[in-house]
Amino acid sequence: MTDFPERPPLYYGSYLKLDRLLSCQEMESAKLGRPAHDEMLFIVVHQAYELWFKQILFELDAVQEIFASQPVHDRDVGRASRALGRVQEILKLLVHQVDVLETMTPLDFLDFRELLYPASGFQSTQFREIETRLGLRRDDRLPFDRMAFDQRLSEADRRKLEAVECRPSLSDQVEAWLERTPFVDFGGYRFQETYRAAVSRMLGRDIAYIERNQAISEEERQTELKRLASARERFDAIFDAARHRELHARGVWRLSLRALQAALFINLYRDEPALQVPFNLLSRLMDIDETMTTWRYRHAQMVQRMIGLKLGTGGSSGHDYLKAAAERHRVFGDLFALSTFLIPRSTLPDLPDPVRRAMAFTYAAEQV
Amino acid sequence: MTDFPERPPLYYGSYLKLDRLLSCQEMESAKLGRPAHDEMLFIVVHQAYELWFKQILFELDAVQEIFASQPVHDRDVGRASRALGRVQEILKLLVHQVDVLETMTPLDFLDFRELLYPASGFQSTQFREIETRLGLRRDDRLPFDRMAFDQRLSEADRRKLEAVECRPSLSDQVEAWLERTPFVDFGGYRFQETYRAAVSRMLGRDIAYIERNQAISEEERQTELKRLASARERFDAIFDAARHRELHARGVWRLSLRALQAALFINLYRDEPALQVPFNLLSRLMDIDETMTTWRYRHAQMVQRMIGLKLGTGGSSGHDYLKAAAERHRVFGDLFALSTFLIPRSTLPDLPDPVRRAMAFTYAAEQV
Amino acid sequence: MTDFPERPPLYYGSYLKLDRLLSCQEMESAKLGRPAHDEMLFIVVHQAYELWFKQILFELDAVQEIFASQPVHDRDVGRASRALGRVQEILKLLVHQVDVLETMTPLDFLDFRELLYPASGFQSTQFREIETRLGLRRDDRLPFDRMAFDQRLSEADRRKLEAVECRPSLSDQVEAWLERTPFVDFGGYRFQETYRAAVSRMLGRDIAYIERNQAISEEERQTELKRLASARERFDAIFDAARHRELHARGVWRLSLRALQAALFINLYRDEPALQVPFNLLSRLMDIDETMTTWRYRHAQMVQRMIGLKLGTGGSSGHDYLKAAAERHRVFGDLFALSTFLIPRSTLPDLPDPVRRAMAFTYAAEQV
Amino acid sequence: MTDFPERPPLYYGSYLKLDRLLSCQEMESAKLGRPAHDEMLFIVVHQAYELWFKQILFELDAVQEIFASQPVHDRDVGRASRALGRVQEILKLLVHQVDVLETMTPLDFLDFRELLYPASGFQSTQFREIETRLGLRRDDRLPFDRMAFDQRLSEADRRKLEAVECRPSLSDQVEAWLERTPFVDFGGYRFQETYRAAVSRMLGRDIAYIERNQAISEEERQTELKRLASARERFDAIFDAARHRELHARGVWRLSLRALQAALFINLYRDEPALQVPFNLLSRLMDIDETMTTWRYRHAQMVQRMIGLKLGTGGSSGHDYLKAAAERHRVFGDLFALSTFLIPRSTLPDLPDPVRRAMAFTYAAEQV
Repeated sequence: MTDFPERPPLYYGSYLKLDRLLSCQEMESAKLGRPAHDEMLFIVVHQAYELWFKQILFELDAVQEIFASQPVHDRDVGRASRALGRVQEILKLLVHQVDVLETMTPLDFLDFRELLYPASGFQSTQFREIETRLGLRRDDRLPFDRMAFDQRLSEADRRKLEAVECRPSLSDQVEAWLERTPFVDFGGYRFQETYRAAVSRMLGRDIAYIERNQAISEEERQTELKRLASARERFDAIFDAARHRELHARGVWRLSLRALQAALFINLYRDEPALQVPFNLLSRLMDIDETMTTWRYRHAQMVQRMIGLKLGTGGSSGHDYLKAAAERHRVFGDLFALSTFLIPRSTLPDLPDPVRRAMAFTYAAEQV
Repeated sequence: MTDFPERPPLYYGSYLKLDRLLSCQEMESAKLGRPAHDEMLFIVVHQAYELWFKQILFELDAVQEIFASQPVHDRDVGRASRALGRVQEILKLLVHQVDVLETMTPLDFLDFRELLYPASGFQSTQFREIETRLGLRRDDRLPFDRMAFDQRLSEADRRKLEAVECRPSLSDQVEAWLERTPFVDFGGYRFQETYRAAVSRMLGRDIAYIERNQAISEEERQTELKRLASARERFDAIFDAARHRELHARGVWRLSLRALQAALFINLYRDEPALQVPFNLLSRLMDIDETMTTWRYRHAQMVQRMIGLKLGTGGSSGHDYLKAAAERHRVFGDLFALSTFLIPRSTLPDLPDPVRRAMAFTYAAEQV
Repeated sequence: MTDFPERPPLYYGSYLKLDRLLSCQEMESAKLGRPAHDEMLFIVVHQAYELWFKQILFELDAVQEIFASQPVHDRDVGRASRALGRVQEILKLLVHQVDVLETMTPLDFLDFRELLYPASGFQSTQFREIETRLGLRRDDRLPFDRMAFDQRLSEADRRKLEAVECRPSLSDQVEAWLERTPFVDFGGYRFQETYRAAVSRMLGRDIAYIERNQAISEEERQTELKRLASARERFDAIFDAARHRELHARGVWRLSLRALQAALFINLYRDEPALQVPFNLLSRLMDIDETMTTWRYRHAQMVQRMIGLKLGTGGSSGHDYLKAAAERHRVFGDLFALSTFLIPRSTLPDLPDPVRRAMAFTYAAEQV
Repeated sequence: MTDFPERPPLYYGSYLKLDRLLSCQEMESAKLGRPAHDEMLFIVVHQAYELWFKQILFELDAVQEIFASQPVHDRDVGRASRALGRVQEILKLLVHQVDVLETMTPLDFLDFRELLYPASGFQSTQFREIETRLGLRRDDRLPFDRMAFDQRLSEADRRKLEAVECRPSLSDQVEAWLERTPFVDFGGYRFQETYRAAVSRMLGRDIAYIERNQAISEEERQTELKRLASARERFDAIFDAARHRELHARGVWRLSLRALQAALFINLYRDEPALQVPFNLLSRLMDIDETMTTWRYRHAQMVQRMIGLKLGTGGSSGHDYLKAAAERHRVFGDLFALSTFLIPRSTLPDLPDPVRRAMAFTYAAEQV
């Protein structure tokens, strides 16, 4: 209490600037003398979105500051994970908000829809900033959205977003952090080699089993052997630098080979004390990616309900675009793709004792 | 398009007044040079609440206007029901918002909690207005909350709320609308008499059954007969004007006898075409009452988590108060209480044909 | 109480058959002596789905029985609407259930995934029945799913589903009900003509405005005129029997012209007492269609998270298929498409008084 | 693949035992020849609850096994935390399920309510087991519920639950685990002393400030000084063994002094790497406690809606009881109460370097 200087009492309304906040809802239809009841809902929903976008950006500030430090401190990773957990809770709320907007019917929307031209959600600078900060690059965007970037934003907004594009995204930062994961190569231990050997062993055993199995037809045998060969090739993609370079160039992978291997390592050995929090962090990034996608999809459904389906016309309609963006605008797709490269825990090689010890706490007390 | 005069193009940011809206988040802790990260969340959550409160009030405006007309038009009851449905969706969202606020831990709250003194959610004028507009009377409020009314609000807010208290609440309006329900007494049909007779028949049959049942002990017989006598007395409460007056005076019932009977009638014969929409409307009022209660309860839980439990002190703590208010501030409790007065459909008397016909559409086409 | 014969007391556990119910969870991994912890979750989630599917089918039984009667009774439409409202609540719960399943990680799934071969959710007979009962036809299904129909189901299940396919679906029944909507042609009133005239007037006014507007360039004028011509053509699609026949044959429309017009009429004049409940009913069908779609989408996301993304392979992976089905398996798309054919309420022709009167209650009491 | 013996193909329906599962829904009303439509919903909702209860118990098995080991392994604490996270997701789903049950109206319930006598949710053995396993003791239960324990359960169920009561609950196990937290006394560091000194310093500064502040009246000074004295007394409660013993005996505290201090330490220094996962675990326990409470509350609201309010009778009605139990049956109240004992981070003493080092990873690679 004594920590802060004497201050005048603070009241709820002035603290929250309610006078100003609640004067921001001006219905275009009312200005024209024909108030359309549902325009208020339309405004409030979108303003609530923008408030929450501001909060998400605020959390991303904190997270990105943590990951900007060299090295990233272990004590801060838990904090980053909690901040991302909050972003995830907010995104779930935003998905829920679509239910509220859907209490508006198309006929109600028609009462004021025309007045809004050419305003559009594509012009939300904050939402674009969230996407960019997470790691969506301009070329990842669908053409229509890229165009909106160039044409629909004010000069100031465009410049602001371009500055954001020039800074490292969370995806870039997480990649750099993953690349420094110490245990992937630790003392004489090489995760890459041990894991590759385990995969090889597993596949070899499968091949041997199929080759000597009398119960299956020659045709089944060939099918199965082909399947195993393709599995081996798939696994190679994550150990072979040349193969990774090629896939990276084609945009199949976004993360570096080293970062991918570290993420795989964290997923496989997540129970080691030193990996529990990193594993949480990667899970949160996937949650966020998925919930952003869900939100885009629900938003697209809502638009479709409001505007209707185009009949047999060639052009892509708004909601088709939005549904395509739902997938295309994912940022952390690599983390999802890694599932393909997991092997069952029963065939997973144990970590050497010194590595496990290094990933644990020792509780040896020095004298204080 | 031609309906509206030529206007300059409208952009998303200016339409939503984003400059102003997003300048309303000023952290007290930042002003003092010691920014507390979670204060932003605290502000944004409460501002989002207030935006939604504004929307709820806007919907209540529309609903109360419908119920202010004499008579209430059937075409408008569906519209009122939809508006209340929207209020319900918003309230569900507000309950969900508590999940987001709970990502703040007590330790985080402590970083700025002291700076807010004596601001408090009890000072939300809009929330009080919602409660009052629905029908919460000053005397229904818990003492602490009544006191906050007198001491914590600005002069302007207090005067505004007092004016709201003087106008008919939605509860008053719905009561008046129920009292005019035509079919409760229609032609020679008297719902009150028919229903009372059915109840009497049902209870009489039960008594006879118990009296002649050899299988049960004398003791059980007496218990059962007492139970039936008390059921009869309970039912009397809704048919006997004197008994109702007494209960009404004691505050057990809030609605008039006539309104209660109409609500009961609507619940029992809800499938008749003329009662389907009134039944929806009553259901929505119950939904809203219940979800307001849930929100208060979740809010109280959140406060308890933030502030902790008081140990062995006599005084009521904030969250105890809030939990008490969760129940005490219900407005449409009578509609819930009516469940006690329903009888099984198998013993429900059929409506006379003329009454049923009057509650149906005939589809007889006049020439246009 | 006396209504039912004397019966032995009923206890919670035996009423719910808990012994049997809770003996249905047999983990394959446990049978093989290597229990995989998360297999239990996998079983319970899917069993919970199936319990709810049974409930949905039970509600559809009631709804379809209502719509099977000739004519459909107005008193039952409210009941049908409530039953569909329940289906919608259940579907929202099923979407929520995906969150629970996603607490399983891909590595956990790998512990037992192989044991389930070739079991697959595509083999859920109840889910298929729900889709079919709502109105999904075999040819609407994606090829993969159609194939599963032929190959993966037991003989008994296949025969059962084929029988379901032969009965009228809810979509068929609603179409027939819509076709009988009395007010679309009532006395001398023809909705089709009045509405077409209103559209024509609205577009004519727009054209005149653009032709005489000096402020726009010749190029803009041509663009706008083209846009209006295409709007007119679009509107024709819903009034012109030949045009409708063509689009119907191409599968663009599913509903008959008459049913489409009735649905449009109900949407436009939803506030008339006789249309309030039909409007609710159509809204519920759209809610269900949309939430089924959301569930398929969330389910596809979950599969993607579990299985990973296929890299550069040609074949469609499970989750791609599921996402495609999310859209393709919609049943009530026509109701969404109708939004395109709404005109603003300000240009909507008033209904003739006799029509409005016929859609209202009169409250004239005969003597009982 | 080769890991498992050759097995016959597995199909969805047989894997999930759908024949058996879907034969467990027998409506009492149907047996009596008067099927009450909503009884099916009633059965399915409660069966879905029981399926999820089984899953919760299954997760508690895993968590309790982890906490039964001596010592608890750090690698397992993350796993326990994830399992509790799953329990929390399930509980949120159960809260959501109340929405589905509320689509049943009281009149619908009346069609079969009498047939269920005397079955009651209080007879759910699994739910009782969850409560007991978490740590609810028989004496903590409300009298009515204790009675149900004695009278309404079958002999087998009672014996089963009594055995559960004899085993250590999760609350007991977490208490023991907290008591062993190494860093609370580490080398020469004594958290208790350092923290007590910090509290003393903070309060001392506040007292000095108030005593020399000229701007406040004598009366205010006395009030403030009293407030500070009471704060000091409150803090004593967590450092003074005698005071704690007294409060423990009165049931104000449940956890031992040592466990409380460890929990406080973990909350205050949660960002240290060694405390991040323990902090998550404590947060999950609070989430679960709170969501159990919410579920009981929503359940009570639903009962109230179905059964109606008792009017002026003395006895406690079912939903009053349920609402009382919502609070009374909390298990981890101590963790919530700890919020009272936090001090602002700005006055929190830094940990000595050796303690911080011991709580961090060192990443020094031995040779493998």
